[in-house]
Amino acid sequence: MKCLNEHACFGGKQGFYQHDSSEIGLPMRLGVYLPPQAEQGPVPGLIYLAGLSCNEETFLIKAGAQRYAAEHGLALIAPDTSPRGANVPGETDHWDFGLAAGFYLDATEAPWSTHYRMESYIVRELPRLLGSQLPIRSDCLGLFGHSMGGHGALTLALRHPGAFRTLSAFAPIAAASDCPWGEKAFSGYLGSDRSNWLSHDASALMAASMAPYPGGILIDQGLNDRFLTEQLQPERFEAACLTAGQPLTLRNHPGYDHGYFFISSFMADHIAHHAKGLNDS
Amino acid sequence: MKCLNEHACFGGKQGFYQHDSSEIGLPMRLGVYLPPQAEQGPVPGLIYLAGLSCNEETFLIKAGAQRYAAEHGLALIAPDTSPRGANVPGETDHWDFGLAAGFYLDATEAPWSTHYRMESYIVRELPRLLGSQLPIRSDCLGLFGHSMGGHGALTLALRHPGAFRTLSAFAPIAAASDCPWGEKAFSGYLGSDRSNWLSHDASALMAASMAPYPGGILIDQGLNDRFLTEQLQPERFEAACLTAGQPLTLRNHPGYDHGYFFISSFMADHIAHHAKGLNDS
Repeated sequence: MKCLNEHACFGGKQGFYQHDSSEIGLPMRLGVYLPPQAEQGPVPGLIYLAGLSCNEETFLIKAGAQRYAAEHGLALIAPDTSPRGANVPGETDHWDFGLAAGFYLDATEAPWSTHYRMESYIVRELPRLLGSQLPIRSDCLGLFGHSMGGHGALTLALRHPGAFRTLSAFAPIAAASDCPWGEKAFSGYLGSDRSNWLSHDASALMAASMAPYPGGILIDQGLNDRFLTEQLQPERFEAACLTAGQPLTLRNHPGYDHGYFFISSFMADHIAHHAKGLNDS
Repeated sequence: MKCLNEHACFGGKQGFYQHDSSEIGLPMRLGVYLPPQAEQGPVPGLIYLAGLSCNEETFLIKAGAQRYAAEHGLALIAPDTSPRGANVPGETDHWDFGLAAGFYLDATEAPWSTHYRMESYIVRELPRLLGSQLPIRSDCLGLFGHSMGGHGALTLALRHPGAFRTLSAFAPIAAASDCPWGEKAFSGYLGSDRSNWLSHDASALMAASMAPYPGGILIDQGLNDRFLTEQLQPERFEAACLTAGQPLTLRNHPGYDHGYFFISSFMADHIAHHAKGLNDS
C-alpha cells in the first residue's frame, strides 16, 4: 500500500493511499484517518461508504469526523465508490451508474462483473489490508455510509453477519430493489431477474434477519431531502426492523437536506454510537 | 442579495449568496453560516478570508467551523478571494496572481485597479451588506483568515482600526512585502515602488501600530508547512508585536502542514478566541 500523501490532523494522521486490489483487479485508493491512540497500538476501525459521485476523499474532507474519531480513538476508513480505470463501455454515461456508482455489490453481468466487485473488496480484501498494513484491528470494525453508501453499509452488514460489529447510516437507499436508482443499478450489475435483487435490498434483508445488532442501528434522515420519498424510503427499513425485532433509532430531522452539511451536523452522534460498540469489544 | 442555495447545518443555516458589488463592479459570491441564535436577533459575525486558489465555499466546506459557531452564537462569513469575470488579460496565467489571488487590497495599477478592489469590498461594502440583509451585527465583527487570507486579515485589521474587534490567523503571509508571493502580487497590483508595499505588510503595519488588540491576537502555524520559511515568516510578525507591545499567541505545531486538515484541527480555539471578544462586546 503506497501512501500518496499524509497530513497531521487532530493529533493523528490523515493519509491517502493506493494499492493494487486483487478483488477489483485494478489499483484502488482509500483514505484513512489514524487517531493519536493508534501510536500506542491497533485501534478499532470505522469504514464509511460514500454516495453517488463521491470518491475516497469526500467524507474525509467534508464530514468533520476526524475530531470525534480522535476523541474516541477510532480509525476512519474511506474507500472509493467504484473501480477506476475499468474502462467499461458506457461507464461514464450516467452519474448514477458505473463510475463512482458501484453500489457496493459484486456485479454478475458482463462486462461489469470483471472489475465491479465492491462487495468482495470491502468485506474481504479491505479488512485484511487494514489489519496487515496499518494499526487497525481488523477484528473490530464498524460500518456506516451515506445514500448509496448507506445502502452499502446496511446490505453488507446484513449479508455478512459478524463482519462488522456496529452499523449506522445517513439517508440510506433503504429498499434499493424498488427505487429508480436501485433498479437502474441492479438491472445493469445483476441482470433483469428481480428475484436476484432482494438479497441486495436492505429492507428485504432486514425483514429476513435475526436482528443481528442488539445494540441498535442508528439512522439519520433529513426531511428536506429531495430524494426521500422516491429513492430512500427509510420507513421501509424501519418496518423491516420492527418485523425482525431489530432495535433501530431512526431520527427524522426537519429542514435538513441530502448533503454534507446535514451529515456533518450529526456526525458526532454516529461516531459515538460506533465507539460505544467498538470500544466495548 | 440573491440566495443561491441554503442548507440546514448544526441547527442553523448555511447559505451561499450572490450580489452586485459596487466596489468590485461585478457580481460577487459569499457564503454565510447563521447559527441558531440568529433566529432570535442579530448576532456577531466572524469574517474568514481564504487563501490562494480558494473561493467562497472552501472554508465552509472544509474547515468544520459551523459546529463551533453554533455553540458560540457567531455568524461565519466567507467572501471570495478575488473578483470573478473581470477578464483582465493574463488574469488566469498564474495560480498565485490574478484570479483567486486578490490579496485583499485595492489595486492601484491598471488594468487591475478597475475591479481588483478587495480591500474596499471587505472593509466597506461587506459589513453594510451583512447588517442590512442578514441578522448580523455589522458593528460587532471579527476577522481571520488563512495564508493569503491571513495576510488579508492582519493587514485589513491594522489598516482599519476599529473595523474588526477580534483578530486571528492560520499560517498567514506575515511580511508580504518581502516574500515571493507578496512581491509578485504587490508588483502587479501596486506597482514597482516598494515604499508603497509596506502599508500592506502585516509585520510593518504592526511594528508601527499602537497595539490595537489588547485582548490578544491568535496565530496557529504548522511546522511541517512547506511555505513557512520562504513565504510566511510568522517570526517577523511576532517580533513586530513585541515592538508594538501587542499581545500575541503564536502557536507552532510540529507535524502540521498548510492545508485544511491543519486548519480544522485548531478551528475550535479560533472560534472561541473570537467569541470571547465579540460576545463581551
